[in-house]
Amino acid sequence: MSDITRFEVSTRLSRAAVYQGLVFIGGTTPDDRTQEIKGQTAQALKKIDKLLADAGTDKSRLLSAQIWLADIERDIGGMNKVWMSWTAPQAAPTRATAQVKFASKDLLVEITVTAAGATI
Amino acid sequence: MSDITRFEVSTRLSRAAVYQGLVFIGGTTPDDRTQEIKGQTAQALKKIDKLLADAGTDKSRLLSAQIWLADIERDIGGMNKVWMSWTAPQAAPTRATAQVKFASKDLLVEITVTAAGATI
Amino acid sequence: MSDITRFEVSTRLSRAAVYQGLVFIGGTTPDDRTQEIKGQTAQALKKIDKLLADAGTDKSRLLSAQIWLADIERDIGGMNKVWMSWTAPQAAPTRATAQVKFASKDLLVEITVTAAGATI
Repeated sequence: MSDITRFEVSTRLSRAAVYQGLVFIGGTTPDDRTQEIKGQTAQALKKIDKLLADAGTDKSRLLSAQIWLADIERDIGGMNKVWMSWTAPQAAPTRATAQVKFASKDLLVEITVTAAGATI
Repeated sequence: MSDITRFEVSTRLSRAAVYQGLVFIGGTTPDDRTQEIKGQTAQALKKIDKLLADAGTDKSRLLSAQIWLADIERDIGGMNKVWMSWTAPQAAPTRATAQVKFASKDLLVEITVTAAGATI
Repeated sequence: MSDITRFEVSTRLSRAAVYQGLVFIGGTTPDDRTQEIKGQTAQALKKIDKLLADAGTDKSRLLSAQIWLADIERDIGGMNKVWMSWTAPQAAPTRATAQVKFASKDLLVEITVTAAGATI
């Protein structure tokens, strides 16, 4: 039995990997990319909630986040609004936010996080 | 009592999070953005020194760093000069450096690090 | 004796750092930058294999990866082809991929990974 647990594994990537009490969640993106930034951010965060639950933890145990935006000038306000209403009280992770270019033209936001696993 | 310790927490982010001997420090930026790259880099590193100290560790225990620049062609030399005079002997972290676009027009550099906590 | 082991250390960076069963490998780049994306990706992954081996582990124990490309529209297909033929069965890491700007004009890809150390 491996000491690493992976979720939603393909030859390209795993959506989450758990090792020694640390939960790594990869770049998480919305499925419906016709939505604007608030909708896309909410979708990505909902997926992160699901992956955290699969790994036996939740957003109150987030350690770090990296947020990539396709248009930071236009979208940082909307993303932040959804983000700040989502974070757990007194438990927001560390964060770094920047504009990059994505492979998909319609993608506006991608969020990568690391979390602590279940309380032992 | 939580097994995660956070520093400078807001609803948006924590400046640092400590868990199981790992110290996560978020994207750290200079306050005085009228300065050029060397001044901005030195400011960010001074803040990182402070956060590492708050977490009970120091720059000789850095594990990884990600450095984002607003203008890599113009600024990588100046950033590297300040960075290399700052790293502890035989203890520089792993590093990845790239140009991204920031939310703030005057921001030239943002540095994210992970460190080992206090020696047990 | 330190509880952190570093590989290929300079004043600027270490190529890898191992701490508490976690292996951090920094932004890894190809040496021969006259090659196109497939060649450059293969070179970077070969270097990562070497660093993982130095740290006593291998690609089947990767936890997370960040892939930066200089031209994501042109190069994501070629990078993915090499990447997917390289990942270990049922053991691909989490991943985030984006276009950034590099310091070197000829560099097409840079890959940063975190892995679990040797099985204890």
